Amino acid sequence: MSLVLQQKGFASRVLGVELNPDHAAKALSLGLVHEILSLENAVQRSDLIILSTPINVAEEIVSGILDLVDKQVIMDVGSTKKSICDAVANHPKRARFVATHPMWGTENSGPEAAVDQAFAKKATIICGKEETAEDALALVEKIYRLLDMHLLYMQAADHDMHVAYISHISHITSFALANTVLEKEKEEDAIFELASAGFESTVRLAKSNPAMWVPVFMQNRENVLDVLNEHISQLRKFKSCLEKENYAYLQELIENANGIKRILK
Amino acid sequence: MSLVLQQKGFASRVLGVELNPDHAAKALSLGLVHEILSLENAVQRSDLIILSTPINVAEEIVSGILDLVDKQVIMDVGSTKKSICDAVANHPKRARFVATHPMWGTENSGPEAAVDQAFAKKATIICGKEETAEDALALVEKIYRLLDMHLLYMQAADHDMHVAYISHISHITSFALANTVLEKEKEEDAIFELASAGFESTVRLAKSNPAMWVPVFMQNRENVLDVLNEHISQLRKFKSCLEKENYAYLQELIENANGIKRILK
Repeated sequence: MSLVLQQKGFASRVLGVELNPDHAAKALSLGLVHEILSLENAVQRSDLIILSTPINVAEEIVSGILDLVDKQVIMDVGSTKKSICDAVANHPKRARFVATHPMWGTENSGPEAAVDQAFAKKATIICGKEETAEDALALVEKIYRLLDMHLLYMQAADHDMHVAYISHISHITSFALANTVLEKEKEEDAIFELASAGFESTVRLAKSNPAMWVPVFMQNRENVLDVLNEHISQLRKFKSCLEKENYAYLQELIENANGIKRILK
Repeated sequence: MSLVLQQKGFASRVLGVELNPDHAAKALSLGLVHEILSLENAVQRSDLIILSTPINVAEEIVSGILDLVDKQVIMDVGSTKKSICDAVANHPKRARFVATHPMWGTENSGPEAAVDQAFAKKATIICGKEETAEDALALVEKIYRLLDMHLLYMQAADHDMHVAYISHISHITSFALANTVLEKEKEEDAIFELASAGFESTVRLAKSNPAMWVPVFMQNRENVLDVLNEHISQLRKFKSCLEKENYAYLQELIENANGIKRILK
């Protein structure tokens, strides 16, 4: 975000808050930020605060930041929306906060994971816009338009249900697939030699950081459990086809799965 | 393969055998083949026969092709190796056949799915090389070196066990994930709008053709069932962590999955 907002001339000065000194130095040298400050100083000197931490940390600190805010705008960019919206629901400065989720990410983390233009042409979600001051919403919408993102609006609870299907379950299957292979395939050299593009694309997400993902599964526990139960029951259908050698039904299951072409080009 | 072997000056004339008239016309117009012939004519006029069909068809027709062969070489490129090696084990011309599996593919099929240089830098497996004539093996090795592939040798049964982990299970999880989402997420517009890169990479394989994959799961049934059982039990661990709110163990499961970084860059 910082890279594009600087390129577009929107952000002339970017202040960073970062406890990890290596990440702080790296963010400075990569030009992601111009200065590293304490949270209090950074909030005082900012017009816009982008809260980008693991979602449990965001939920903990968002009210304290709102306490420090006057006319500034705070937006978050976390993967769940209900918990953080609930955390600020009764805050006297609630209207300065905009709950958002730009739908882009990789399995990498830290300042070196920044990718220029990463958000372009992707969707971003704004939740509970009616709780937000008009000027705060307008500023955040302007930012996402500069990032060339497609804006969607929904309620936080709906957001959390949809992302359980679209994002969270993909991560669980990928973690579980990595554990399956690591458990059963003791000849790691064989995996290394043989791993094909299909394997890499389904297992890539298993490199994702637990500090980010444990809080996501914790906060979105009920939706994720719902989807995970359905997913296990879908896998059992494949298992049953193989056990019973029912290849006509296996064919049908795969043809049904091909229906995803309607949705993904 | 045809594209690269022509570019490298190895194949001066490529003869195609194709029952589907649309695919035949397309293969000609894309320059994948110079002529479409009957199987019998093509075998008579070829030095090398590359058998590239769904694996059940390959298994059915390989002996008949060997019957027609004199000094020619036949290689197959299918995803399982034990069934086809068993099918030719007692054929008097067994030594003219080379069982291979170049480890590259996409979810697409048909002549338009051809990708120039697709095989470069990937692994290819040759099974049961001691059953093969020296000149036949040498020709196939030469072809894979022209394709810039990394050669590996193993027994057919070992191959089938490894690919169950490395390739076949990824396809089952991807088909099941597509069915999960299609079943539960009735608002297809929401998926379409929200689907992020992570979702696309885990679900991409669900577009794969059942005509190719049903025979793979059929022939590699026992290995696939083994891996699928392990995978379901790994998913149940995630489920149990969420149900019991045991986030320390969830953290551990994810950290363990991160171990895939040792194997995939």
